[in-house]
Formats: sequence, structure tokens, C-alpha cells
Amino acid sequence: MAKIPVGVLGATGTVGQHFVKLLLDHPWFELAALTASERSAGKRYAEVAKWYLSEEVPREVADIEVRPTDPKAVEDVELLFSAMPADEAQRVEPACAEAGFVVSSNSSNFRMDSDIPLIIPEVNPDHLALIDVQRERRGWDGYIVKNPNCTTITFVLPLKPLYDEFGIRRVFISSMQALSGAGWAGVPSMAIEDNIIPFIAKEEDKCEEEPLKLLGSLRDGRVELAPIRVSASCHRVPVLDGHTIAVFVELGREATPAEVVEVLSNFRGLPQELELPTAPRQPVIVSPEEDMPQPRYARNAGSVPGMAVVVGRVRGDRALPNGIKFVCCSHNVIRGAAGAAVLNAELLRARGYLK
Amino acid sequence: MAKIPVGVLGATGTVGQHFVKLLLDHPWFELAALTASERSAGKRYAEVAKWYLSEEVPREVADIEVRPTDPKAVEDVELLFSAMPADEAQRVEPACAEAGFVVSSNSSNFRMDSDIPLIIPEVNPDHLALIDVQRERRGWDGYIVKNPNCTTITFVLPLKPLYDEFGIRRVFISSMQALSGAGWAGVPSMAIEDNIIPFIAKEEDKCEEEPLKLLGSLRDGRVELAPIRVSASCHRVPVLDGHTIAVFVELGREATPAEVVEVLSNFRGLPQELELPTAPRQPVIVSPEEDMPQPRYARNAGSVPGMAVVVGRVRGDRALPNGIKFVCCSHNVIRGAAGAAVLNAELLRARGYLK
Amino acid sequence: MAKIPVGVLGATGTVGQHFVKLLLDHPWFELAALTASERSAGKRYAEVAKWYLSEEVPREVADIEVRPTDPKAVEDVELLFSAMPADEAQRVEPACAEAGFVVSSNSSNFRMDSDIPLIIPEVNPDHLALIDVQRERRGWDGYIVKNPNCTTITFVLPLKPLYDEFGIRRVFISSMQALSGAGWAGVPSMAIEDNIIPFIAKEEDKCEEEPLKLLGSLRDGRVELAPIRVSASCHRVPVLDGHTIAVFVELGREATPAEVVEVLSNFRGLPQELELPTAPRQPVIVSPEEDMPQPRYARNAGSVPGMAVVVGRVRGDRALPNGIKFVCCSHNVIRGAAGAAVLNAELLRARGYLK
Amino acid sequence: MAKIPVGVLGATGTVGQHFVKLLLDHPWFELAALTASERSAGKRYAEVAKWYLSEEVPREVADIEVRPTDPKAVEDVELLFSAMPADEAQRVEPACAEAGFVVSSNSSNFRMDSDIPLIIPEVNPDHLALIDVQRERRGWDGYIVKNPNCTTITFVLPLKPLYDEFGIRRVFISSMQALSGAGWAGVPSMAIEDNIIPFIAKEEDKCEEEPLKLLGSLRDGRVELAPIRVSASCHRVPVLDGHTIAVFVELGREATPAEVVEVLSNFRGLPQELELPTAPRQPVIVSPEEDMPQPRYARNAGSVPGMAVVVGRVRGDRALPNGIKFVCCSHNVIRGAAGAAVLNAELLRARGYLK
Repeated sequence: MAKIPVGVLGATGTVGQHFVKLLLDHPWFELAALTASERSAGKRYAEVAKWYLSEEVPREVADIEVRPTDPKAVEDVELLFSAMPADEAQRVEPACAEAGFVVSSNSSNFRMDSDIPLIIPEVNPDHLALIDVQRERRGWDGYIVKNPNCTTITFVLPLKPLYDEFGIRRVFISSMQALSGAGWAGVPSMAIEDNIIPFIAKEEDKCEEEPLKLLGSLRDGRVELAPIRVSASCHRVPVLDGHTIAVFVELGREATPAEVVEVLSNFRGLPQELELPTAPRQPVIVSPEEDMPQPRYARNAGSVPGMAVVVGRVRGDRALPNGIKFVCCSHNVIRGAAGAAVLNAELLRARGYLK
Repeated sequence: MAKIPVGVLGATGTVGQHFVKLLLDHPWFELAALTASERSAGKRYAEVAKWYLSEEVPREVADIEVRPTDPKAVEDVELLFSAMPADEAQRVEPACAEAGFVVSSNSSNFRMDSDIPLIIPEVNPDHLALIDVQRERRGWDGYIVKNPNCTTITFVLPLKPLYDEFGIRRVFISSMQALSGAGWAGVPSMAIEDNIIPFIAKEEDKCEEEPLKLLGSLRDGRVELAPIRVSASCHRVPVLDGHTIAVFVELGREATPAEVVEVLSNFRGLPQELELPTAPRQPVIVSPEEDMPQPRYARNAGSVPGMAVVVGRVRGDRALPNGIKFVCCSHNVIRGAAGAAVLNAELLRARGYLK
Repeated sequence: MAKIPVGVLGATGTVGQHFVKLLLDHPWFELAALTASERSAGKRYAEVAKWYLSEEVPREVADIEVRPTDPKAVEDVELLFSAMPADEAQRVEPACAEAGFVVSSNSSNFRMDSDIPLIIPEVNPDHLALIDVQRERRGWDGYIVKNPNCTTITFVLPLKPLYDEFGIRRVFISSMQALSGAGWAGVPSMAIEDNIIPFIAKEEDKCEEEPLKLLGSLRDGRVELAPIRVSASCHRVPVLDGHTIAVFVELGREATPAEVVEVLSNFRGLPQELELPTAPRQPVIVSPEEDMPQPRYARNAGSVPGMAVVVGRVRGDRALPNGIKFVCCSHNVIRGAAGAAVLNAELLRARGYLK
Repeated sequence: MAKIPVGVLGATGTVGQHFVKLLLDHPWFELAALTASERSAGKRYAEVAKWYLSEEVPREVADIEVRPTDPKAVEDVELLFSAMPADEAQRVEPACAEAGFVVSSNSSNFRMDSDIPLIIPEVNPDHLALIDVQRERRGWDGYIVKNPNCTTITFVLPLKPLYDEFGIRRVFISSMQALSGAGWAGVPSMAIEDNIIPFIAKEEDKCEEEPLKLLGSLRDGRVELAPIRVSASCHRVPVLDGHTIAVFVELGREATPAEVVEVLSNFRGLPQELELPTAPRQPVIVSPEEDMPQPRYARNAGSVPGMAVVVGRVRGDRALPNGIKFVCCSHNVIRGAAGAAVLNAELLRARGYLK
């Protein structure tokens, strides 16, 4: 089977670099195009990407000429991964979909639009049905699929099996988020050395809204939001990669911590069943250590490094009926961003949404 | 008025050093005795204290001979501050109280005992009435007064005026706690560099139990626990000083964020009324900045540095009826430990509990 | 005596903020004008300065209207402190001096020009004589005085008494420089977390050239460079404030570490003799601890916090004839920048160079 | 060919864990025994090793029963790797050698003894001839081979080809050393957060003495120390792994930076020729980036991760005749400790020193 040629829109930033890394040896996809802003277009990738994942830009992409972020510039590919800033994506992604491209996007625009599938493959793969609604409504040849915010993914993955098994009424999350979530230059060292910053712009809204769509039910071509309430408080901590989240949950019925651990440990989704290349064998790993998950370790956990969510400290909650609390952690740029979009694209291909 | 001679039990550790610093120029108290373990007794203070607050041990205490931690060794003082480990305090403090000393203790033992006053002077100064109960029941000449855990103090101070004004039903707290809370050698740098540790032994129990006593009502010589429920998740972050806490509150009746800000800003307690030397003019400061409080700044806030709690990000909560959430921060070793015990002692003196 | 009205050019950055802090309660100077780029001019200082020294901009300056950086906009002041970027200073400072202002500048331009005094008041106060040369040659009513680079100041202060006492032939320095040296947003946290960066643009040249002028002799209206050789390797480390430097020195004649310690400890300069307000009683403090100086402590050392250099670990050197090595540290933004320029201005006034 | 059964003495610490990791899939060696102190002996490895390299102890060793550190307890192995503290190694290693074991040791004792080979395989493999001297003199069946201190290895590897090509007279090194060099609990986070510590006990002596033996010549069964002088200043920085060193060198004859880069890049030693399993294809990698080497990247560089030294910033030196300076960095626990001892053992086997 020939590999599918793919491109990365906004390939020079933190998420873009992880896309490049994940796609370099991908069994199904062939990295064929890298785009960036006008200022970088025409230059060598190694010249414009402040590569931060290792000492050097991988040899295979160092000399690739960066193209402008424009559908006309990437006509040789079928599938586009988007790591653009939301405002740019808002403008460019529809143009790409109209021009016939499939867009698997990590950008935060459009996520809550009713005809845009917002997908975690282990959670709501059936929502891909919105693709047809979207194409028909918008008259596009191509289409756009989104993955959620990095923090949302990290706590919704473990919530999914609990939602199915016990029901969920109410969720409180308090995040301790990594620096890479803000991009390479997003957080000055003087701002965060010996410090934390208890604020991340727009993050709490995303964490409170996206789970309702992800856990919602598809009915008649639209998603009925899940009848749960989520409250979030989001904070930046001096950690390179890995978002850690304290989660307090009011379940729909009583469950012991041991039952919760069992449900989490046994959780497998469609990507595991389909054995998608980027799917970890176990999407949620429960650590037995009393002081885990810690981001320096959890961010690389799993059979596909960075794609598992590690859960620890499952215990009862005194302040909620049927209350449970736990801590979860995953790699915010892999499972929370680039890896999420790649897994979505693998699901698209496996379900016949790619030619 | 002559100064009251005081001693510090366990004077060489992190909290002990803050006691020394706060007492060096105290208007009411005269630092007369420093004690430590047998191993250190007999040596110069500068020799045995790994002083971390500035480049050198303050000249005034450098040459003081450290005494053994024993009531017989401190007979020249009236008041003892305790910064001992809980297990040692459990043994030594009763001996001191029996020998007639007043003990203002930061150690975690005895805090929930029914005849031990657990005091934040702005919150429950009337609980000092337990002193008589305690002396009578135990037959002691002296007595023990406790301050709460550093995290508890930080979030109960802002909860107090909300409790009085609106009522409180339920509280969820998620803490990001400083390294100094674990003592000088408590957290190895290799454990916390580029990392957080989502676990602090016994901390969550303290945060869930102590507020009920602090906000409880004194009736017939005992404290009726407040009818609220608290759930805590406690985490260590790479910050030197300053505990930051995300707080989600279900109030007893509806209140807007603006009303909450007003109540917090106007809050004054008995220490402010009495103008106790270590009392900040404003116990709770509300920051208008969207990204505050941050520990590097908040830990020194207030008219008495380190004694105020800074609150920020007051906003409504989607997941709770009458829900409010905010972030608060204070210096864990000053307002949360040594300063708390000193303020308690000042309250004791102002209320006639010291000769 | 009336205070002299002064202004700060480039008042919003890291160095500018330290100027503001040092000048707020200055006994001789009255802070009358703050300037910034066109973009900020006309706005309140609190609005445009990302104040980082405490939780809030000091009340006294919060509402000051920022002026454009232009001599015409500051006609009510006599003395200007400059914290501008070098390229802007290159253009603006001569215009100010021509317009009659005295400029005490921390910017790196012009430092090695033959008619510009490059001054550390304890080291070469006699070089102020270049002011007359400068005014005559350039036809200016005002004049420019410079302080050296922050790293240079930190190691030249202790070198000065050694140079006078023993002679110096050769110096090797290896710096570990704080984040604040690069400005608030100069070093992204992702670049320096769990990392160091062994490169600081142009820094090594400054460290190798400026000492020769500082230790040089004034002859016939010009400075003869000192006949020493300096080699520097400069590195950035994750520390907020405080440059630490390992120094290896080939002295002109043999000296024991004890003799070196004595000479350093006894060093006093003209600012100490004149009791200038910002002069520490002791410009160089020798720490007896085996593991000092450490920047977290040393940066606030001295009778005027941040104005002393702390030296430690004085020992012989195996690889140099008459070799000595030591470690020194000072606050890079106080003694190394804003405090340096303020001390220079105090010297100017004490020596009659201000009206 | 059957694998050689090996053991690790002191297997629970930082270096011990790296030994375990490197030996788990080693093509020549079979990990057969792990020892630790009496207190840990008899327990499962997973129980006593505070494993820090990933979230969990590797499954293959988790259940191994830790043995006491005693030659009698490891009779089933031929080769012992030593990661013991120096004082314990001083006692145990001779007993092991006498009992017939080959000991490849990272411990710092004995390194400068005249009949103990102190080996970096790329630098002085011929010094293995001291083994015969040692066995004869001490009457041992087995023998001891040492690798140098982690800092020494990092700068001597690049010095070796320069010494051979240009000669070296004088070396100054200033190190910025990682936390792991002090062991898991060696540096409290409170000591190093927002700080550096310019002192590491005994480190400078090792850096000044060991290079003379490493670069020395073997004559008549003893090593003539190299006629060079080394001066070191050693400092701890908040970095997990990777020692970075600024090096100033007086060469024996003039050389341009370009010539130095060429000699470093072309350097290959006996391990490369023999294609030893743990030998990187290139022992010294020269980075062309102006701001490299940085420890977060350099510590994993090379074809065998952690075994290369990365050199950058090669430039002339103003203060030395024939002066050159550069910065070098390597993984202190791999190339600087466990990997060094494993490479030594591979050399032993390849040269016929293992049965």
C-alpha cells in the first residue's frame, strides 16, 4: 500500500515539530510538505525552525524548503495537519477544506461548531459522522476534523470509561500545565522561575465546554451535549512537558476506588481494537505508587511514548455524593496535540474517510 | 513594659529559623532560648543551624548556645514556640505545659483534640476559651495552643468572611505547595527539577479536617464542627516559598464575584482591631490582576511581609449551586507556620492569657 | 539642599524598574520623568511597565505619564539615567548631551570611546576627568558617563585592590549569569529549564576589553589601557538575579590566599570615603563559608542591598605562576546596572560635576 | 559465544541504576547479581531502589533479590561493576580482586595509585598493562580497573587529540555540573532552586590530578604523569544530567580554531576501531551552533546515547600563548560513570583481559 502524502501547516512551532517527529517514520503517511508564515517560506526548514526536541533538526527534514501556508502551495498532498495559531487557522482551514483537503487540526478554532467533529478516537469515534453533515452544509470537497485542547484530552480520556460505567454528574479539575503548552517563547523564564502562574488565557472555558461535546451523543446529525457540569481552574508550572490534573468527580452512582481503578485499567477503545499505529496498547495506565503520576515520568509512558494518560491516587471524595478523586497526567504536546491529530488521521483512514 | 522572655523548641529547622527572625526585634517578646536535638545541644546556633534565610546567621543569635529540648533547660522563659517534628512534640509539649509553660505550637500533633485551641486569630479567637477546659482537664499549670497547617490557614482565612456573610456548604481545594513546607532537605532537587509531585503525606487529611474546627462554634466548652465538607488534593511544585491554592466553593446563598471581592477586601479580624504587632492591616488582599496571585510576589505581600493572604481570579463556578472559585496564596512558613504561632502568642498576651 | 530632578530613559524594562526603585526615596535625586518608546508614551507607567519587582508598581510612580524618549520631553530635569537598548542609546544619548543634559548611562554603546569615562567609583573615579575632554571635543553642554557591563563590574571590583597591591598579568573568567541580565522576555523558560546556555551575545568581548580601560591610567587626557590580558567564557544559568563568576588570576608577584583575603576585606574606595548614599560600607565582602558565594544570598548582601560583591573560595592556582583563584558574585541589575549608574551620578555630584 | 555473567556492587543509587539500564540488553554481558548495603540485602530490587530513570523499575530486574555487598555473595559472576561510595569501595574492592574478580570501578578511591589503571578507552588503552603490575605486586587473582571522575572524562576526551596533535601546556576548566552527580538526595531542592552552588567537595583535586595520569606515558610498568598543569573551579547548577565545562587551553604550538575543530571531529580511538558495543561512532562531536553544547541536548548525543562529548564554541584565547577555548558537555552518569565503566569492561574483554 502506498503511503499517503501529508503536509503540516505551521510546522515550525512546538506542536509543528512534534508533528514532524511523529510523521517521519509513519507507516501510513509520508511527510511531503511543511508550511510556515510568509517570512519563513522559501527557506530551509532547519533555518527557520528553532528545533527543540534534540540537538539538531532531523536530517530527513533539515533541507526541506518551507512553503507558504496556502492550499495552492500543497497540492501534492491529500491530508493536512494543522498546528496554526487559532486566528490564522480560522482563515486558512476552510480554504483548505474547500479546496478538497482533509484537515486534521489541533488549532482551537471551530471546535465547538455543530458540524465539526471534535474527536478523541478512544472516546467518540462515532462523531466522525459529522463529516458528511459538514461537507453537505458547507459544500466542501474536503473537511475539517479537530482534536480537543491538551488539558481536556488528558482528563476526558479517564473520564470516558467512568462515564460509561457509573455515570458522571459533576467534575472539578485543577491543572498544573507544562511550559510547552504556551509555545517555545510563550513563558519567559523570569516569569516562572521560583514561581507558578495561576492563569492561562481561555483555557478554563475550553476545559469546561469541550468535555460536554466529547461525551455527548450523536443524534440526527448533531451532538447532544452530555448532561454534566465541569468547572476548571488552570495553572502554569515550571515543567517542560506534561500536564498534571487533579480531578474531583461526582459519579452517577456509588463506586469504590478499587472499582474505579479496575474500570480505568480495563479501558480500551476503537484505536486499540483497530491497532492504529499511534494508539497505545492501554490508553489509561493506573500507577500503584502513592506519589504518581509525575510529569517527568508520565509524559513518556505507554507503549507509544507520550500517548497514554497515567492516573494515580484514586481515592474517595468527602465533599461529593458518590465522590471520587484522582490525579492524571499526559504529554501535552503528544497525546494532547500532535499525537492526538495523528491518531485522528489514522482513525479517518481506518474508517474509510481518506481515499 | 518589660519584654516577655520566650524560647523556640526546634530552632534549627526551616520553621525554627523563621521564628528566630520574627522574634529578633519583636516589641513584646525577648528571644532567650533556642533548643534542638541532643546532637546539637551545647553548640553555637550558627554552627548547627543550616541558616537559609540570608547569607549568614543574624549576629544576635549566632553565638547563642543551643540547649537540649527539655523543659528543665528553659526555665528562664515563660512562653515556648514549638517547631518540633510532630512525634517529638507529642512527647515534649505536654511535659512543658505540665511544667507551667505556655506553648504556642506549629507542630501538627494534638490539633484536633477537643480541649486544644486550634487558632487563627482573625478566624476564631473565641476558641481560646478552651485553654481553661484544657488546664482543668489535664491538671496543667501551663497550656498548649496550636495554629493550623500551612495550607489550611491559607484558604481558611479567605473562607472565614464568606462563611459569615454567605454561608458555605462545600469546598474543593487543589494546592500547589512550596518546597520549604517539607523542610530544608525534604525534597531532593532530583525529585522536583522539571517535575511536580502530586502527593504530600497526611496533608489532605489536615486540609479536610482542620477547617471544620476553625469555623466551628464554641458551645459549652467544646467546639461544634462547622457543617461543611472539604475535599483536598495536595501537590508539591518547584517554588521556594508560598503555597498557592485553587479553591472551589459552594456558598450558602447566591453571591456575585463582585460581592465576594468586596467581602474579602473588607475583612478585618480581632488582630487588626487590637493592632497586634504581627497582624497585617489587611489579612486578605484581593489582587485585580488576571494572573495573580503568584507565589514569588504574594509570599511577601501585606503590611507585615508574609502575613497576608493574596486572593485573585474570583469568578463564578459552573458546576456548583451558588458556586464561586478563586485562587489564594500566602507565605507558608510565615503566615502558615512561624508567623501564625507568633500572632497566636500576641493574641494570648492581648487577651490576658500571659502573665 | 533641594533635590536634583532626574529622569530615566527607557524606564519600563528590567533595568529601568530598578532605577525607579532606587530613585524613589533617594536623598539627593528626585524622580521627575520616565520615558519609553513611542508606543508607550502618553500612558500611565503602571500600564506599560510589566513590573516584576513586587506584586504592584509602587504607588508613587503608578500614575506618572510616560514621556517619549526625547530630550525635548524632559526639559524639567538635569540628570538622565539611561537604560535604553544600545542602538537606541547610540542615537539618543548624544542628542541629550548636546542639549545640555548629564547622562549616566548603563547602555553598552560608547563604553570604549576614548573620551567617554567608563567608571566604577571604587575603581577609577579619576577618569571623570575625561568629561572635560569629551565636552570640548564634541562641543556639548552636557556629557555622558558610562558604567561597565554587569559581569565586568562584578569581577573588576575585587580585582582592583589586587591589581594595586600585587599587580595582575592575566585573568580568566567563567561566568554563570542570571536571567534578568537578558531582560524580562530575554530567555524563554523552555530554553533554560533543566538546562544552561553557554553563550551570551557580545558578552565575552565586553568582559575582555572593559577591564583594561577601568584599570588603565589617565595620562594627558586619555586612558592608557592596563597591560593585562583577560579571557572570558560566559554562560547563562537558571537563576533570577546574581551573576556568579569563577576567576583565575596570575598576579604580578606571589601572594598567599590569606594575603588576598586580607587585601579584599580591607578594600575601600572613594565612595566609601565620601559616604555616597548608594555606596556599601564594604564594596567587597569575603565569605568564610566553603560553598559561598551563592547568588540567591549574595545578590542582596551588603549594607546597601545589592551593591556589594561577595567573594569566596580564595585559593591558590596550580596552573599559573603567582596564581590565585576565587569565585565572586553580585546583583547584576543593582551593582551591575542601575545601582552602578546611580552611584556614578552620586560621584558626579560629590565631585562637583552636577550644578 | 556465551555471555559473561556480571554483577553490580552498589546497584541501588543513581550510578547503579544506569549500570542496570546499560547492562539489561548488553550483547556481551549478562546481568546476574545486584548488591547493596546490609539494610537492603534480601529484598526485591524494586523495593529498595528509588528508581528514577522512568516511571517503573524495568520488569527484568524488579524481582531480583538484592544481595549483600560481599565477594562471597556473588560467586556466580566473573566481572563486577562498582558504584559504591569511595570509603566502602576502598574496603570491598581489594577483597573482590583478591577473591579473583575483575572489578571495573567508578568509585573514586585508588584512582591515582601507581599500579591501578585509570582508563578512558579512547585516551589511554595501553595503560591496561598496569593490570599485570598490579596482580603481581598485590598477589591478586583478579584486579581493579578504574574510570576517572565524570568531569575529568568530559574534558579529557576532547583534550586527548589536541594533546597528540598540538601539545598542551596548561588547562583551566570551570564546570557547571548536574545534580545527578551528587546522587538522588545529594542536593536539596531548597539549596539549588533559583541558585547555584560554587563548590563540590574534592572535585577540583580530581580534575587537576587525573588528567596528568590519563595523558601520561607508560614506561617500565609505571605511568609518567603528563607535563601539563590543570586548574579547576567546580560548580553545581540546577540541571538534572549533563556536566558542561568551559575549557581554556594553552597549546604547545599555534593552532587556529578551524584546525582544532578538524582534529576534534576526526578523533577516533581504539573503541571505535574495535567497534565496542558501547562506543559511540564519534567520541567527540563538534556542534556548529553558536549557543551549544547545552546539557539538555548534549547529554543524549551520539550514536550510543550519552556516550559522546559535545564540543562547541571553539575560539581563540586572548590571554594565553597558543590559546584556545571551548565548551564541552557530556552525560555525567553515562559517559562520566556507568557507561565509562562498561566501556572499560568491553575493552578488557576485547584485549583478552577477561577469560
